[in-house]
Amino acid sequence: MQPLRIGFIGMGLMGVPMSLRLHRAGLSVSVWNRSPDKSEPLKEHGVRVCEHLHELISDSDILMTCVTDTGAVRAIVEGPGGIAEHGRDSQVLIDFSSIDPQATREMAEALKIKTGIRWIDAPVSGGVAGAEQGTLAIMAGGDAALIDSMRTVLKPLSQRVTHMGPTGSGQVTKICNQMIVSCNVLVMAEVMALAEKSGVDAKQIPEALKGGFADSIPLQLTGPRMAERDFDPVKWHVKTLLKDLDMANALAKDSASAVPMAGQAAELMRLHATQGSAERDPCTLIEMYSSKGEEA
Amino acid sequence: MQPLRIGFIGMGLMGVPMSLRLHRAGLSVSVWNRSPDKSEPLKEHGVRVCEHLHELISDSDILMTCVTDTGAVRAIVEGPGGIAEHGRDSQVLIDFSSIDPQATREMAEALKIKTGIRWIDAPVSGGVAGAEQGTLAIMAGGDAALIDSMRTVLKPLSQRVTHMGPTGSGQVTKICNQMIVSCNVLVMAEVMALAEKSGVDAKQIPEALKGGFADSIPLQLTGPRMAERDFDPVKWHVKTLLKDLDMANALAKDSASAVPMAGQAAELMRLHATQGSAERDPCTLIEMYSSKGEEA
Amino acid sequence: MQPLRIGFIGMGLMGVPMSLRLHRAGLSVSVWNRSPDKSEPLKEHGVRVCEHLHELISDSDILMTCVTDTGAVRAIVEGPGGIAEHGRDSQVLIDFSSIDPQATREMAEALKIKTGIRWIDAPVSGGVAGAEQGTLAIMAGGDAALIDSMRTVLKPLSQRVTHMGPTGSGQVTKICNQMIVSCNVLVMAEVMALAEKSGVDAKQIPEALKGGFADSIPLQLTGPRMAERDFDPVKWHVKTLLKDLDMANALAKDSASAVPMAGQAAELMRLHATQGSAERDPCTLIEMYSSKGEEA
Amino acid sequence: MQPLRIGFIGMGLMGVPMSLRLHRAGLSVSVWNRSPDKSEPLKEHGVRVCEHLHELISDSDILMTCVTDTGAVRAIVEGPGGIAEHGRDSQVLIDFSSIDPQATREMAEALKIKTGIRWIDAPVSGGVAGAEQGTLAIMAGGDAALIDSMRTVLKPLSQRVTHMGPTGSGQVTKICNQMIVSCNVLVMAEVMALAEKSGVDAKQIPEALKGGFADSIPLQLTGPRMAERDFDPVKWHVKTLLKDLDMANALAKDSASAVPMAGQAAELMRLHATQGSAERDPCTLIEMYSSKGEEA
Repeated sequence: MQPLRIGFIGMGLMGVPMSLRLHRAGLSVSVWNRSPDKSEPLKEHGVRVCEHLHELISDSDILMTCVTDTGAVRAIVEGPGGIAEHGRDSQVLIDFSSIDPQATREMAEALKIKTGIRWIDAPVSGGVAGAEQGTLAIMAGGDAALIDSMRTVLKPLSQRVTHMGPTGSGQVTKICNQMIVSCNVLVMAEVMALAEKSGVDAKQIPEALKGGFADSIPLQLTGPRMAERDFDPVKWHVKTLLKDLDMANALAKDSASAVPMAGQAAELMRLHATQGSAERDPCTLIEMYSSKGEEA
Repeated sequence: MQPLRIGFIGMGLMGVPMSLRLHRAGLSVSVWNRSPDKSEPLKEHGVRVCEHLHELISDSDILMTCVTDTGAVRAIVEGPGGIAEHGRDSQVLIDFSSIDPQATREMAEALKIKTGIRWIDAPVSGGVAGAEQGTLAIMAGGDAALIDSMRTVLKPLSQRVTHMGPTGSGQVTKICNQMIVSCNVLVMAEVMALAEKSGVDAKQIPEALKGGFADSIPLQLTGPRMAERDFDPVKWHVKTLLKDLDMANALAKDSASAVPMAGQAAELMRLHATQGSAERDPCTLIEMYSSKGEEA
Repeated sequence: MQPLRIGFIGMGLMGVPMSLRLHRAGLSVSVWNRSPDKSEPLKEHGVRVCEHLHELISDSDILMTCVTDTGAVRAIVEGPGGIAEHGRDSQVLIDFSSIDPQATREMAEALKIKTGIRWIDAPVSGGVAGAEQGTLAIMAGGDAALIDSMRTVLKPLSQRVTHMGPTGSGQVTKICNQMIVSCNVLVMAEVMALAEKSGVDAKQIPEALKGGFADSIPLQLTGPRMAERDFDPVKWHVKTLLKDLDMANALAKDSASAVPMAGQAAELMRLHATQGSAERDPCTLIEMYSSKGEEA
Repeated sequence: MQPLRIGFIGMGLMGVPMSLRLHRAGLSVSVWNRSPDKSEPLKEHGVRVCEHLHELISDSDILMTCVTDTGAVRAIVEGPGGIAEHGRDSQVLIDFSSIDPQATREMAEALKIKTGIRWIDAPVSGGVAGAEQGTLAIMAGGDAALIDSMRTVLKPLSQRVTHMGPTGSGQVTKICNQMIVSCNVLVMAEVMALAEKSGVDAKQIPEALKGGFADSIPLQLTGPRMAERDFDPVKWHVKTLLKDLDMANALAKDSASAVPMAGQAAELMRLHATQGSAERDPCTLIEMYSSKGEEA
């Protein structure tokens, strides 16, 4: 039996280390990126770099995508020279991007009808470090048996693949993840400001709560920076968390779910963004709750 | 030099294992409880049980309290036969109870003036298991040098003592801890209901998010129970989280801090409580967000 | 000079009395409706009823539309046989419908380019009674001079035409109106339930607050019904207020405006809707805040 | 039969015109104020001014109070030389002040037991103009027959006396009034900022919505000032609205009522206050929602 050939589309911060890990695990990997220069590092490691997308599609059994947003996935799937044009029904598409669940369901349905290709949505958490170390957590939506059959090729990338339900469920789960994180960061900003105003040495809070019920990775990472008013370099953006919350609220509206905490969080994040902080680090949220002129 | 004699007041779920650990660490421990029967187990282990509170006060160098609420601390400190009457200025009071910070500051101030006793507020996190294993996290408010000098007697109880600021700061920190937890549980209820309505197998969410930015102990403990509608036995109460949130909001009001996330959380928790769930487990919050008749 | 010929499209609850008033004011009026039977009453009053939309378009100087939603306006403007196909650049379109501002701007722009027709968005408040009595309040968006030149034909319909800004501004203003109303109804539900729980005879509240700073038409109309738990007949729907709030929040998101009160209102309205009340009267909101089993 | 003698306590902005109207209506009125100079204007009109509070108490059948807050009422009722000391059981106390309902109930109960005096809480709306013109709206709590028997003496002051329930109900109603007003002002700030950002001439909004479902006195009074950024002179204070909302939320908490809109309003008002606007006019709330640097 011939080994499975993987075609990986999207050589961004995540795609480069992910495809490299697959290559190093002995799998046959081809890659493609819209801007060809991003693929250069792969060449040096002996990975095949395709000049044209249709070429990669033709020569692969499993198509993997990891791009920035819904529009970018749509361009690859439905755009000229893309998967809908050149794919065939023996193929499987695994989309690692974090995109809109409803768009995922619609594109998957249309692609299945047109080409027979089966779609697994598989957004990840764990960041660039997880991609490099192969410790990503994958939240997968799609057919259970199909996802099971992909475990071998997902193994070099991840510590865990969780099947969340039918197509789109992986994307919904990723949104749930972001909802919890964004709400929590807003709560932390309130808590840190309240502690300060109540005479507490807020810098000690993350240490004091470590390992307890209130602890989380964001508390340990952003708590100290909030307390120290240490906002540079910008590690993530207020506008990114706002985008995540807006996506969560759109999903909630579409599924007739009330989400008053996430709704509140979106409004507060937007308030902070409109007060001039859209491009700043979310740690700056503490400024919204500190009285004017008060500093650490 | 004579060894320090500890007097421990309050033989509840926490006080019993805490005083026992101090005794087993070779310290001289006397105990007292308002209802004498609660002290019986200590006798069996050879701990001295005092019949009268004033007796324990007279015979101790360090007074420790661990009782249910502000009123109970006040009764021990300011009530007849209590610490204000029988204490002396060489003593130190360490209060492990979780109570109102402002009441702490006022009682500490008054006790200092009347008797010279110095007060350390030292609420804990880690629960009964932490008390039994000596792995509590202690959030301490009071004089830094005084707290340092107590590290030997706190060592058998805790993995960590964090100095948070002047008297009352420990209590403020404990409220901050509870704020984060209560807000997070409300966010989780929204997230789990949203996931279900969006076609996701919500039972998989805690596993899928494990170890990531959205993870927390409450997610792992209550997430599965929410998804399974597994509300019995009641492990904690909606009314307890509501009380914590109300205390947080009172503190915020007193310190002129806006806390819109915690304010929102209090109202939602109250809404759930008034809809007949005050005595139920907080996992029942998912019911508020599930459409009528919808079940797992 | 020849008198202006008006073509009125949409013979609904508002369109019928509006076109009748224009006719009775001596203006030359033709009408058209997608379902022809709705136009029958007009015939009896001597108004010309067109069989085909293109016929009405050809024979009119001013086109007026009053239909249910954005899709219905789009069908008339951009659909087959519609205004974009048959209109000409001397015409003016006055849209009395309450629809999406952004869609209004886009359709107006496209229609202007294609045909030269100028668009006035002119949503109204005052309901059927206002339409019958000619006392509508018109919130108009578009060119100021053009709106001024239309005052003669708007006169029989309205007590007031307010120019709010460029095209789309009328629709934004209508959304603002709905935001205030929906938020206020939610506040009233809280207030009435709180009054009851505090031992007050809530039925007296609307009377007690009459004419004061807290008074409003909704307080007088819905307050007594809330207090009496008088929910039938259904006079408006929870889902309608929810739709209004969702439109307001979408507008706010698009214009980067934080609207935490309206955001809160949308989530609470959605919560009530998902708890089985979408098709019920908004007066039922008081049930959400009354303890289980409590009644007036 | 001898005419009823009224003793009016509290010669503030409201007390002066109210006692003057009673005097002019032919009633026998004595007045007293803590700072005697405030009573001077009354003397000129021939009203009897008492030097000592106990003197006024002894010589009156009906005691009326109109002072600033709960503490001030308590001082008059329970303080040295006050009503509890010098009152007698044939007397009636009518308190026009806006104070805490629970304190009202407690003081009324204690005073009844001690002296037999019956208490009517009777906060008013209508402001100084209403006091001068005798058009106040009175929200009365207490015994229905007793309140009825007072209609003659309340007639010169008010257009309307509404009986709201047992003692304290008047105060609860006043709080309900303030809740609606404060929430509405916050909604208006959002709406006006949203309208501006959406290209609308916000100055036209109050006029456009006049007489409709969204209209209210605050919209007409503060809407134009918000749109014009006309914040001086300060007509009322952010901190006053915050105090009202905090009182409402305290009442809600005590009666186990969820009030998520008023809770939200309190947090937003507090946020604005802590950002340096406590002493400013509530019209400044629009600044919170306008992007930095944006102006009318």
